[in-house]
Order: sequence, then C-alpha cells, then structure tokens
Amino acid sequence: MAADPRIPVAVIGATGYVGAELLRFLVPHPNVRVVFASSDQYRGKAVGDVFPFLRATCDLRLEAHDPAIAAAKADVVFLAVPHGTAVPLAEGLLAKGRRVIDTSADFRLKDAAVYARWYGEHKAPHLLEEAVYGIPELYRAQMPAARLVAGPGCYPTGALLGLVPLARAGLVTESVIVDAKSGTTGAGRSAKVEQLFAEVNENFRAYAIDAHRHGPELEQELRAAGGRVRPLFVPHLLPVSRGILSTIYVSGAAAAEADLSAIFEGAWGKEPFIELRGDGTPPELRDVRGTNRCVIGWRQSPESRQAIVVTAIDNLGKGAAGTAVQCLNVMLGLPETTGLLLPPLAP
Amino acid sequence: MAADPRIPVAVIGATGYVGAELLRFLVPHPNVRVVFASSDQYRGKAVGDVFPFLRATCDLRLEAHDPAIAAAKADVVFLAVPHGTAVPLAEGLLAKGRRVIDTSADFRLKDAAVYARWYGEHKAPHLLEEAVYGIPELYRAQMPAARLVAGPGCYPTGALLGLVPLARAGLVTESVIVDAKSGTTGAGRSAKVEQLFAEVNENFRAYAIDAHRHGPELEQELRAAGGRVRPLFVPHLLPVSRGILSTIYVSGAAAAEADLSAIFEGAWGKEPFIELRGDGTPPELRDVRGTNRCVIGWRQSPESRQAIVVTAIDNLGKGAAGTAVQCLNVMLGLPETTGLLLPPLAP
Amino acid sequence: MAADPRIPVAVIGATGYVGAELLRFLVPHPNVRVVFASSDQYRGKAVGDVFPFLRATCDLRLEAHDPAIAAAKADVVFLAVPHGTAVPLAEGLLAKGRRVIDTSADFRLKDAAVYARWYGEHKAPHLLEEAVYGIPELYRAQMPAARLVAGPGCYPTGALLGLVPLARAGLVTESVIVDAKSGTTGAGRSAKVEQLFAEVNENFRAYAIDAHRHGPELEQELRAAGGRVRPLFVPHLLPVSRGILSTIYVSGAAAAEADLSAIFEGAWGKEPFIELRGDGTPPELRDVRGTNRCVIGWRQSPESRQAIVVTAIDNLGKGAAGTAVQCLNVMLGLPETTGLLLPPLAP
Amino acid sequence: MAADPRIPVAVIGATGYVGAELLRFLVPHPNVRVVFASSDQYRGKAVGDVFPFLRATCDLRLEAHDPAIAAAKADVVFLAVPHGTAVPLAEGLLAKGRRVIDTSADFRLKDAAVYARWYGEHKAPHLLEEAVYGIPELYRAQMPAARLVAGPGCYPTGALLGLVPLARAGLVTESVIVDAKSGTTGAGRSAKVEQLFAEVNENFRAYAIDAHRHGPELEQELRAAGGRVRPLFVPHLLPVSRGILSTIYVSGAAAAEADLSAIFEGAWGKEPFIELRGDGTPPELRDVRGTNRCVIGWRQSPESRQAIVVTAIDNLGKGAAGTAVQCLNVMLGLPETTGLLLPPLAP
Repeated sequence: MAADPRIPVAVIGATGYVGAELLRFLVPHPNVRVVFASSDQYRGKAVGDVFPFLRATCDLRLEAHDPAIAAAKADVVFLAVPHGTAVPLAEGLLAKGRRVIDTSADFRLKDAAVYARWYGEHKAPHLLEEAVYGIPELYRAQMPAARLVAGPGCYPTGALLGLVPLARAGLVTESVIVDAKSGTTGAGRSAKVEQLFAEVNENFRAYAIDAHRHGPELEQELRAAGGRVRPLFVPHLLPVSRGILSTIYVSGAAAAEADLSAIFEGAWGKEPFIELRGDGTPPELRDVRGTNRCVIGWRQSPESRQAIVVTAIDNLGKGAAGTAVQCLNVMLGLPETTGLLLPPLAP
Repeated sequence: MAADPRIPVAVIGATGYVGAELLRFLVPHPNVRVVFASSDQYRGKAVGDVFPFLRATCDLRLEAHDPAIAAAKADVVFLAVPHGTAVPLAEGLLAKGRRVIDTSADFRLKDAAVYARWYGEHKAPHLLEEAVYGIPELYRAQMPAARLVAGPGCYPTGALLGLVPLARAGLVTESVIVDAKSGTTGAGRSAKVEQLFAEVNENFRAYAIDAHRHGPELEQELRAAGGRVRPLFVPHLLPVSRGILSTIYVSGAAAAEADLSAIFEGAWGKEPFIELRGDGTPPELRDVRGTNRCVIGWRQSPESRQAIVVTAIDNLGKGAAGTAVQCLNVMLGLPETTGLLLPPLAP
Repeated sequence: MAADPRIPVAVIGATGYVGAELLRFLVPHPNVRVVFASSDQYRGKAVGDVFPFLRATCDLRLEAHDPAIAAAKADVVFLAVPHGTAVPLAEGLLAKGRRVIDTSADFRLKDAAVYARWYGEHKAPHLLEEAVYGIPELYRAQMPAARLVAGPGCYPTGALLGLVPLARAGLVTESVIVDAKSGTTGAGRSAKVEQLFAEVNENFRAYAIDAHRHGPELEQELRAAGGRVRPLFVPHLLPVSRGILSTIYVSGAAAAEADLSAIFEGAWGKEPFIELRGDGTPPELRDVRGTNRCVIGWRQSPESRQAIVVTAIDNLGKGAAGTAVQCLNVMLGLPETTGLLLPPLAP
Repeated sequence: MAADPRIPVAVIGATGYVGAELLRFLVPHPNVRVVFASSDQYRGKAVGDVFPFLRATCDLRLEAHDPAIAAAKADVVFLAVPHGTAVPLAEGLLAKGRRVIDTSADFRLKDAAVYARWYGEHKAPHLLEEAVYGIPELYRAQMPAARLVAGPGCYPTGALLGLVPLARAGLVTESVIVDAKSGTTGAGRSAKVEQLFAEVNENFRAYAIDAHRHGPELEQELRAAGGRVRPLFVPHLLPVSRGILSTIYVSGAAAAEADLSAIFEGAWGKEPFIELRGDGTPPELRDVRGTNRCVIGWRQSPESRQAIVVTAIDNLGKGAAGTAVQCLNVMLGLPETTGLLLPPLAP
C-alpha cells in the first residue's frame, strides 16, 4: 500500500479565529495533511463541534497543547497562540528539526530591544535574525530554506503591500500616514467587554493612535524596502467581522506625480494574490473577504502633493492564515496558490 | 432657601446596560434626583467617563456598592445587580424603611420552590409574596403602597402584554407558543465569548428552547390572568443591540375568531405606553427602540385555528429600566408618563 | 485534441444574488463549464467587474439575455430571473431540447389556479405538471429524466426539510406553525427603500403574516408528504445578509412523544447535505452560511404537546443556488456533492 | 385666551432622514410649534404612520410641498429637499418675508462658479453671498439678523470643528488630510442598489477620493479661517446608520508641537455642544449618536511631524438637523441649547 504522499502538518492553537482559518485552508489543501490540532480550552472535542461550519470538511479531534506530539507527527507546525507563548514552542520544535510558521508577534521584529519595548523581554533573541518575515511577496527567496517563518501582523501586511513599491521607487521620503480600519476578529476570540456585540455594533473608533504594536513592525519593513521616514499608523475598529481597509497617504511631489501604475505593475504585476485596480472603483472589504487576496487602488493629487493608496485584505486571510499557507507553499516548493483559491463568499 | 422638592433616588449597579438606561431616564426626570449611583468596577469614575453619551446630561460620580449610603441618601433605591445579589441588598434597604425597585429576577417568582429550581435557594422567601410584580398595566393598584417592586423579565413583559388580554377573555385554553427574538443587551454587559461581535454578527440562533428561566415567570403571570395552559417559550438571539419582538401563537377556534380589536382595546385602550396596531403594518423593533412603549399587532387565521399576536418592546426600556421608572411614578403618585416620553431615535 | 468533456451550462440572470451564487458554485464545478452568463443591466461587463469577489475564479463576460444563444451553447440552462419572466424563457429552451433549472417561482406550484392567485395567470400551465420540484431529498428519483426542474422557494426548503419526515410518519395532524427568519438577500438585489441598510440595520420585523407567497408552496409539498393540515407560515426579516432559521412547531401528543431521532435518521440519515443535531446545540446561521447544508435540531415538550424543530439553511445556498446545482448533479448522474463542498466561511 | 407664544415653523421635506430628525428635535422644542410638514411621497399620511418612533411625540399630518401654505403659516421654514430644488423654494419664501434654514447644498458655497462645477448652474447666485454658513460656532454673530442660513454639509462640519482652531492659530500651512468615515444615512433615504443592506453590511469602502462635493465646501471654510492649503478629503462608507468619525492629519512641526489643549480650549472652551477630550480615550460614534454634540480628541507626533485630530458627530444631528435647530435658536435669540439636550441612546 502506497504511503500518503501529503506532508504532515500541525496547528497548535486551533480554536482562535486564526487557528480556525488555518484549518479552513489546510484541511482541503491537496498537498498537506493536518495530523494534529490542539486547543487548551476545547481539547477532546471534535473540530466540527467547536466550529460547525467546518464539520462537512474536517473530522479532526482537538488535542491538548503538547508540542512533543506535534513534533512527532508533523513536519511543519503552525503556531496560532498568543505572543510570548510562541517562543518556547518554536524553540522546542526547531530543536527537534521541525519547521515552524508562527502567526504571533514573537518573531516579526529583528531588534530584541524593540520587541522588549512592546511585548516584554524576548526569551530567544537569537531566533529573531533567523526568522524570515512571512510576506512571500517580499521574502519569497528566503523561504525554501527557512526553518522559522514569522507570520506578519495583519495591519502591516495591508500597509506594506501598498507601500513597498513606492518605497523601493524612492518615493517614501516626506511623510507616510496609514489610516487603517479593521474588523473585530483582529482582536482575537477572547472575552472582553469592549468586543461585545453591543459595544461594537453601530459604533466606530480610532484606538492606539500612533501607539500600536504593529507600528514598529511596519516601520522595520518599510525602512527595509527603502522608506526613509517613520510611518504614522492610526488603527480604527470597524463593526464588521473580517477585513482591513488601509487608506495610505504618501506625501511629496514625487509620489503625487510618479507613474504609480508602472511602479505597482513592476512590483506586483506577476503576483497571483494581488489585484491592481489603479484609480477605478476603490477596493472594498467584500472584494477580499475569505480570500488570500489583496486589492490595491490609488489616486494621486498633485494639488495636495499626495499619493493616496488604498488596500483591502481579509485580516484572517492575507493578514494571517492565508499568508501563512502561502508561505508553506513556498517553503515546500509547491505552486504558491495551492489550496488558496477557494471561492469566497459575497455578500 | 427652599429645599429641593424632588424625591431622592439611588441606583445600585449603574454601569450595566440596565443601570445606564435607568440613569438615562432618571437624570432628566423632573420629580426625582439621583443622589447615589454605584459600580464596583468603575467606582470613583464619573458616569460621563464610563458612558460618554450621558456626559451632557449627567454629572454623577460612581460610588462603591454601599447600601448604607444609598439608604441614608435616598427614599427609593433601584437595584440593577445580578440575581442572587439583590436579595440581601433589598432586605437591608427595606429594614431601613426604604422602598426598593429591583430589576433582577430575585423577587419575580411567587413560589420559592420554583425560584430554587432555576436560580438556587432563595435567602428571603418571605419577601416573595410581598413583592409586587412590576408591570403597571397588570398591578398598578398595588404599587402606591408597595415597599418592594419586582421588575419583570424582559421576555415575559413582551409576551404578557400580548397575552394577558386573551387570557382574561378566556381564550388561552389550548396552547400558547411564544417565539421571541431579543437583542444582545438582554444578556448583560459581562465579557463572554458567545457575545463577542464576531460571534453574534451575521448570525442568528435559538437557545434554551423550552428551558429558559423566563418560562416559569411567564407561566406564573399568564395563569394569574386566567390562562389555562403552560406556554411554550422559545427565545432567539438577534444581531441587534436592543429590542424584543415576540411572535405569539394562541391556538383554538375561539382565539382565531374572537374580536381581538375589542379585547385589546378593552384591556389596553387607555394605556399610555401601549400602541394597538391591529392587523396593519406589524410592529418593528425600530418603532420602540429607546422608549417605554409596547406596540401590539395581530392577525387571525380561522383556517389554521390560530391567533397570531406580535409585540415589540425595547428590552432595556419597557423590558427593564423604562418599566421600573413607570413603577416609580405609580408608587409616588406621579403621572405615569413622567420622564418617559423622551423622543427616541431612528434609524 | 480531445474535446472538453465538461457539460456546457448557461446562467440567464447572473447578476442578482442567486445568479452570482450560481456562478460561485458552477465556475469551479469539475464537470461543467459555464459557457454563457447574461445580465440586462451589466451586459458587456466582466463578471469580475460586477462581483470582484469572483474575479480570481471567474473570467466570464456578461452577455445580453438571448435565450437563443444560451440554447445554442449550453445543454442545461439555469434561469435566475424574476417570476413571470421565466415561463417564456423555459418554454423556448425546452422547445430546443435544452434542460432547464429554474430558480424563480414559475414552476413550483402544481395548480395553475393557485399560481394565478399569487403571481397572476400562468402562461404555460401544461408545464406545471411536468416540472419536478427541485428538492433532491424529496424528488431525487424523478430528476435524471427531468427536462424542467423548479427550484424551490428558500422558505419552503428550510421548512420542508424539518417537516417532511414528521409528515411521512403521520405526525402532522393537528397544527403546524413555521416561524421563519430570513436574511435580506432573500428579497433580491433590486433597489427598495425598505431594504436600505438604515431601514434593516438594528431592526427586525414580521411581514406577510399568514399571507406570503411561499405559504401555498409549503402547503402543497407538506400535503404531498402526508401532512394533513394547512401550515401557518410567518416570515420575519433579519438584519443579516444570508440565512434562514425556521422554528417549527408541530402540535399533538404524537409529535411531542415520537422518537424523532429515529424518524429523522430514517428520513435523512444518508443525506450528504443534512446534519441531524437532535437536541444538542440548536442550529445557527453561521453553521450553514455559504454552504448547501441544512442543519436540523429538535426538542420535544410533552407538557406542551409540541415538537419543536429548528432548521438552518443559507437562503442563497440550500435555499436557491446550492440546491439548483445539487439538482444538476442528479440530473447528470454525477455524485450529488460534486462542486458543493466548498469550505465555507466563519465568522 | 392667550395666544400660543411659540414661534410657528415649517419643515418642507419631512420624510427623508434629515426631515425626520428635524421633527424629532422641533416637535418637543419648547419655543417653537411645527405648523407644517410636507412630503410628496407620503402626503396625507400621519407622521406617526411613516415614522412610528415619532408617534408618541408628534401628531402632525403630512401635507403636499406647497411653499405658499408654509409661508402663510410659519415664520421660519426649514428646507430638507434635494439640492437644486431648494433654490426656488428659498427664493419664494424669502420674497414673502419668511426666514429660511436650508439643509441642502444650495447655499453653502460662496462662489457660483464653484457651485456650478459640482452641482450645475445656480439659479439665484445673488443669494450665495447673503446666506450665512450654518455652523454657529463659526458664524454665530451673523445669525440673529440672517434671512437665509445654509446648513453645512455633514462631512465639512466634522472636519471644520477639528480644523478651524488650528487654522486660526496659523498651524494649517503644509498639508491637511481629512480621512472621514460616515454612516449610511448621509446618503439619504432613496432607493439605490449600493445602499441595500446586503451591499453595505460586513463591507467598508472609500469613495469619491479627493473628488467629493463636500471638498470645495471644506476648503472654502478652512481658508476663511486662515488655512493656507487645500485639504485632501477622502470619505468612506461605514456599515452603521449614523455618525461620522473624521481622522484629520495636519502636518508640520508647528502643528505637531503646538499647545493644542490651549488652542482648542481657547476656541471651543465655552461651546455647549463641543466636548474636548484631548489625548484621552479617542472619540467614538456612540458618544455622539442622537445628539447635537461634537467630541474632539487629538494626539501629536513630533517624530512624524503631525498633529492628529479626531472628531465624532452624528451626521443627522450636529451634521444636519441638530445644527439647523441650533441655528434657529441663535436666529431667534433663544438659549442655544434649547430643545437640543434630549438624552441620547446607547448602545
């Protein structure tokens, strides 16, 4: 009898929003087999009992968070646990020769001092340099050999896909503002009064103005791409479940007058998950919900010396689980869209 | 200098949804003065800091839950605390000669054994008989002399206003089904995963089918009005913040063919907070949101031997804080609409 | 060069909500090829320009409503046009030897007089008898030979899947109430003030109480299954985009005490799209959104002499486009789940 | 018998969202009496039948749009009709000696050429200079003598209350970006596919980027206050019924380092409807929904050379009907808060 040729993978932390979305993409993925999914809170339960929408496609049972079992069963382990707790899990798994794709903030920042300022002291700073930042459009080349991929923050993903082409073209020199609006699943699936339906519904607010943890991550990668300024990042909370729309303002005559179509086409023209919409109908959340896609539109105002770039992603898709699976595909040498072209849903 | 002629009142538990709604109605009420409002979680804060929508109309500061202070300052004390915790508070306040309007479930049931089955042993069963059930449309006469009023459950309120006239007319003899749909504030303002925005939004579900705590309360009052059957009560959770729509089915040829207009007109024709809509446009949540009103519509199906009655209330208004203030007005001998005709909001 | 073995199909009326959902299922379907999709309003445009969420999976261009072209290109034609307009289209296509799956109300009723009462005179009453009612769980045997399938109404679908097993078991003898709650896409994608966001949001209402067009359709099929009473049907409008939850009350001691697990298991135990949940967690809209599934739960109240059955479907999935594709699969002799196990989305 | 001392007022166009909100504020207003309310679509109907939420407080019947009757009955006439149609109505009413408060765009722009570019040729350009721009915080002094007040656009109102103090202080010199997010009632109550519930729900989008009609209005008033740059204005559509949150970016070292507390305090410290929140909890829509208030927060980023100002208003309140009533109060010499301190609603 022929062995199953599919790569065994594990998901540690499968019952948060990112964990469930990983299962949504991984279970029907033709080249992998989910052999382990864990949840402290729901261990022993069937995935389909916790997430009935997955029942028809997933017959896994949730196990306790035991990384030894994950390491024994799987070649690649996805971590979807809170920041801080991913570090020891990743260390252990790497030590056993497993490859790790982390979706927390634990390996995104290169500078341990910056990490410490936002998240507390890092327990394995030697891994920060090794970790590959998990946006394939930026670091595809490093992924086939990577042991550890640091899934990006949802906000930085939406911002960087709109900004990097301009930064590389030398247009990010004066000021950059990222006015981002996110659905509530970005805050995770833990019980908080401020995330109750009646607190979010029919409401809208800015928060953590110029003081959000994703700011330094965005700055790190923007500078890596040639940006010469610190971006101003202002997140807002939308009364929707999924999606991030980022309205990005790049000031300066150069940005306001450059050939953005050529610049974006040159940067992302061959990317399978990026749709370039130019100055037509601006991107909407429903264009990307449930997908690994990013839609990018733009408009230039020479009069106001600004280029306005709008990007839309699904925070759970391209902003977390989708991009993690895309990284997996690159790591394994598979076609990058494998398992990621599920038809989404609208409305 | 003339003394302030307004009656001093207190609100214990002012930062849940019912507590905030009590303040919304009581602060601009012309005949009372809120002299004490308490909150364990937010004590020391201004009400306007916790609920900025109240800032322009309320300059109270939240105190700790000290019933002795409430008793020292106020003549009437509203309790908006979880069931179980209202009992000792009410006992202490009554012992000091204060009048109490409780909005929890602690004094709604007349039978301590029934209470025990749903909420645990009652610590002051002698008060159950004394407490007046707080729907003025039903027990107005007992309120001027009442020391203790038991604010009704939100679901029973919506159901009883639609059912009592039929029960009194002897039409509730075969079967009664209450299919009720409520907004999320009915579940209170405490952090629970199942009440997170992303769990409620774009979702809808039945729960506690024929097994909800409000069932025995509904049955008690329906029987008191002459109903001869146990009602079947099925609640559902709506993705809205406020409102309960109850679709009520009363079976039997008598109900299906009675003159419901005359019956409702006879029962509620002079009620200031009840709008009788007959078989015109059925009641909608937006017709009552933010008010102490109940809108009632009906339709009869002789072919199916059913009378269908639809009622709409705001669960925080007529279903909790509004009716509590209406009780206060009756207890104090004030015109019943005093302070309760605030223009609501739509959309 | 080998010919494409996939069956050519057409969608007339591809830019309403049902039309778009048909494309969502049909475009990735492995055994069919969409060769024609039409829209009066958007003809000439790419499907991906009208529905960007389909861009990554669908590169069709919309044509004008020309049934002759549809007939020339396709073997099977889906109609997703308003009732009344489907009749002449279907007649013409059948005359050219094409098979037709209609999603409008035009061929659901067997009795032309009943049709006339609700929709106006029927222009091709001879087709009413021929048309197979499009719920495979009920009429699977007739579909392989069918020329014309009448896709069922969304409300009747949700109700019948919960009621037919009881009717067949002889339990539907006293009274049946269907209290149904639907998302807004059930009303279609045409501009109406009452469907504006601000009219529906934070609102909820009953409508067409005991007077909805889907009532006679429900009655027809309930009686065909052995039901002996006219069902009372009360629809409500939910502030969600997709989904119908039906709370169904079957009265009588027999229904209240029957072995419903055995009855449902006997009726639907082998159905690939029906999940029987018994008296566990009641079905929720999110369990079925984006799928062709129906989840059924129940609870019995001997005390109240009622069986309560709750069903959840997606009105665009199992309630319209999903079931239409399921019918296609049966008509073509394909495995019934082909193309219908797309992983859905939650939250 | 003493005459009613209340001023008679009329509302032409009472059944749009702004018209209904005018009635909500005007009917309980102690110093005015609504003697005429008109609606083409609903003439002959009671206001309470069109808007049941107003039934308890308003017993008006809707008349046809006859300005002669409005002029005969009322001293002040509110116009809540589409732009273009307000011009002839206002001309006729002024000719008869009535005072007019228009809520359309017809008299906001001072320059007829600018008006023509956005709205078509102006039919009474001589009135543009006379009209007083209807933000009392800016033009209070001109209102007591005004015959014609031009109610401001909802977007410019939210932006100007955050920007004018900085402009007056000479801080608006480099660039200004207004990233505004509005609820759907801003688009009015007419039937459009793009405003259907299922198109807006769970969606979010930018539109009319740097190309919205409110842009020139904002620029006109910003320059009048001393602003020296053209503001870049980018509106977005929120899935909420009410509210505008504007996130405003003023670039330059001066703005980033100025004493904004002193500046705002100096400008708005005595304004009854403006709450200055500084860099505490940023403003939220629920803080202002249903009110005539504006909450303003700010934060400065010297590192990014930006001042970030966030303002929240209700687009129907301070953004339209509320400010119109505030103007009325000033015109009539009444205390400015008269009738405008209705306790709002949250959640």
